[in-house]
Amino acid sequence: MALIVKKFGGSSVRDAERVMNVASIVTDEYKKGNDVIVVVSAQGDTTDDLIEKAKEINPNGPSRREMDMLLASGEQISIALLAMAIETLGCPVISLLGWQAGFNTDSHHGFARIKNVNPERMRAELAKKNIIIVAGFQGLNKYDDLTTLGRGGSDTSAVAIAASLKADRCQIYTDVDGVYTADPRKVPNAVKMNEITYDEMLELATLGAQVLNNRSVEMAKKYNVELEVLSSLERKPGTVVKEKVKMEKTLIRGVAKDTNVSRISVVGLEDTPGVAFKIFNKLAQQKINIDIILQSVGRNNTKDITFTTSKDRGDDAVAAIESMKDVLEYSSLTVDNNCAKVSIVGAGMESNPGVAAKMFEALYDANINIQMIATSEIKVSVLIDADYADKAVRAVHDKLVD
Amino acid sequence: MALIVKKFGGSSVRDAERVMNVASIVTDEYKKGNDVIVVVSAQGDTTDDLIEKAKEINPNGPSRREMDMLLASGEQISIALLAMAIETLGCPVISLLGWQAGFNTDSHHGFARIKNVNPERMRAELAKKNIIIVAGFQGLNKYDDLTTLGRGGSDTSAVAIAASLKADRCQIYTDVDGVYTADPRKVPNAVKMNEITYDEMLELATLGAQVLNNRSVEMAKKYNVELEVLSSLERKPGTVVKEKVKMEKTLIRGVAKDTNVSRISVVGLEDTPGVAFKIFNKLAQQKINIDIILQSVGRNNTKDITFTTSKDRGDDAVAAIESMKDVLEYSSLTVDNNCAKVSIVGAGMESNPGVAAKMFEALYDANINIQMIATSEIKVSVLIDADYADKAVRAVHDKLVD
Repeated sequence: MALIVKKFGGSSVRDAERVMNVASIVTDEYKKGNDVIVVVSAQGDTTDDLIEKAKEINPNGPSRREMDMLLASGEQISIALLAMAIETLGCPVISLLGWQAGFNTDSHHGFARIKNVNPERMRAELAKKNIIIVAGFQGLNKYDDLTTLGRGGSDTSAVAIAASLKADRCQIYTDVDGVYTADPRKVPNAVKMNEITYDEMLELATLGAQVLNNRSVEMAKKYNVELEVLSSLERKPGTVVKEKVKMEKTLIRGVAKDTNVSRISVVGLEDTPGVAFKIFNKLAQQKINIDIILQSVGRNNTKDITFTTSKDRGDDAVAAIESMKDVLEYSSLTVDNNCAKVSIVGAGMESNPGVAAKMFEALYDANINIQMIATSEIKVSVLIDADYADKAVRAVHDKLVD
Repeated sequence: MALIVKKFGGSSVRDAERVMNVASIVTDEYKKGNDVIVVVSAQGDTTDDLIEKAKEINPNGPSRREMDMLLASGEQISIALLAMAIETLGCPVISLLGWQAGFNTDSHHGFARIKNVNPERMRAELAKKNIIIVAGFQGLNKYDDLTTLGRGGSDTSAVAIAASLKADRCQIYTDVDGVYTADPRKVPNAVKMNEITYDEMLELATLGAQVLNNRSVEMAKKYNVELEVLSSLERKPGTVVKEKVKMEKTLIRGVAKDTNVSRISVVGLEDTPGVAFKIFNKLAQQKINIDIILQSVGRNNTKDITFTTSKDRGDDAVAAIESMKDVLEYSSLTVDNNCAKVSIVGAGMESNPGVAAKMFEALYDANINIQMIATSEIKVSVLIDADYADKAVRAVHDKLVD
């Protein structure tokens, strides 16, 4: 007998038919003799509808505390409906709100962090052989006020439950049937992987693969929770995310692109110590996250520093550097918002230097110019013109994945 | 400085405009320097929409526990929206769910009774000068499960808060501007009363005046909470319900009709002791509530017993009596579902026997036959043909109220 945690997103429970479908997946698992805890998000567009209602009353944005009170009702509706659906299939079931399931969070309304999960009530319900339906995305702070966890919060709720009860597996049901080596809508040859490591998944999630929320993967890695990404519409195995995976033929696990990139170049800096420190210390003070950094030798004993940040912080970064004009000499400052980062991810890469070379070859064959290069132990990223991003992903993918 | 509890029903907060209207009533009170606690119901059709969703999934009726989980979300939405509206008007405000406001109930899901209200959190929020918005209709049982109070529950929530915090007044906002001597849609001469006693209000509520829920009036009487029924659309005083009221010119406080009546006649019963006991004991066992009872002498040393019950139990009452055929001799058993009870209510009536006579005179003048008569200290009821109910109400009203 195993304990399985299953998480279903909003589109999986968007109407009565989909709710019944989820109920049937859940009761099939229960009838195998397993304990089942289910985490659900709000139905389909419920959250957007509630946000719309709030905007109608306060277009300038209501307090986050009341927003949490409002939004938490969405999951309350979906847990009750799913429990009712499971009742019709004749299995014992009980729905629990976040606080009833023991979710204690900090007080950052709108993006609260889980402090701990007190599994007492869930244990008692499992002992009664109840299927448990838990409202994802929500918890309670120390003042007894409702909080929500922010985007992807339901994934995190599911992993937190799996961790606190040492579940055998945490299954994240989505619209896709697993994690692919690239976006299958863009890359026809994309391959579904059977297994992938936490670190690979984290790199892919950060790079915008949008299958799993980053925080949930981090938490799964920390507590060694075995994750599975699978489809709620097809009954077949998905992709398992865990610490170590069997080596497969292909060295890389994914090709991802990220077009939310600004490239800022500071040209003609004085070539003295402390210049890089001044720039990045200033940016850190302003909470501007930097991704790739490249420093090169410029003309006449100067140097150039180029770095990337997310598009929404590009202007802030430029302003920050301009504000240092009196302590920092440079000849020009440029920002480019039309660039994309294309990355390959794979745990086996570090022991196989040929992989990066193959990536560069693929781009050369496709006549795509590389602006910047960054590497980590399990990742190679290149910065290119955004107009060629999809073409680059296809070229790199077809060269490296067979 | 006073503490005022205000309750707004679902139609008072049905859309953003109405929510803003309520916010303005509430902040006006607060700006006078008063402490304000507001109880709201779910918006407009929310509850019906949620019931519809549940029926789609389980047409045979889901468990009451999950139904409560579902329905309680309706008030959660409306308290958050009202709090947001009050924020835009610049007053400090906090919304509280039933359990956060301290509502402890028994475990009768769907029609739970309030066991107590722990006002600790509300006191703390008042001390911070917050306007408090409380979700009506809901509480928590001893297992930490959400419960709902059933029809009219939000009125009861408001009175319970007023009682637990010894509020100066509990205002129930509705679509009408107070309690009238008769239904103003049916009786053009109906008069709005400034004051009315709890007992009078209870008789009127029972008789179907539908302004206030009975349980809430009973609780107000028990804890001596001064109620006011008033309109959320017009800013003017309503009707105050309290223990003792100043005598007004008119002796009666209301004329009401009730057409949910079955009249059952058992004719030709043996005239021996115990016959009435046998009949009403049997009906009591079957939980059939009896209203008026009339016993009269019949022909040939027999007696007739006639009584009324609600229409939905009329057939059950007949079946119960028929099942006693071997121990109870009678010549005929008839049921009449086309009758109406018309009643006048007024605390001053017992010391003024002329009132009943005037009522009978009014009916005689209108050529309406009286089938049965029943009186209590503050009420006279007559049973008549349902076809003449509205005519009877008008005739009696115009004779007794000037």
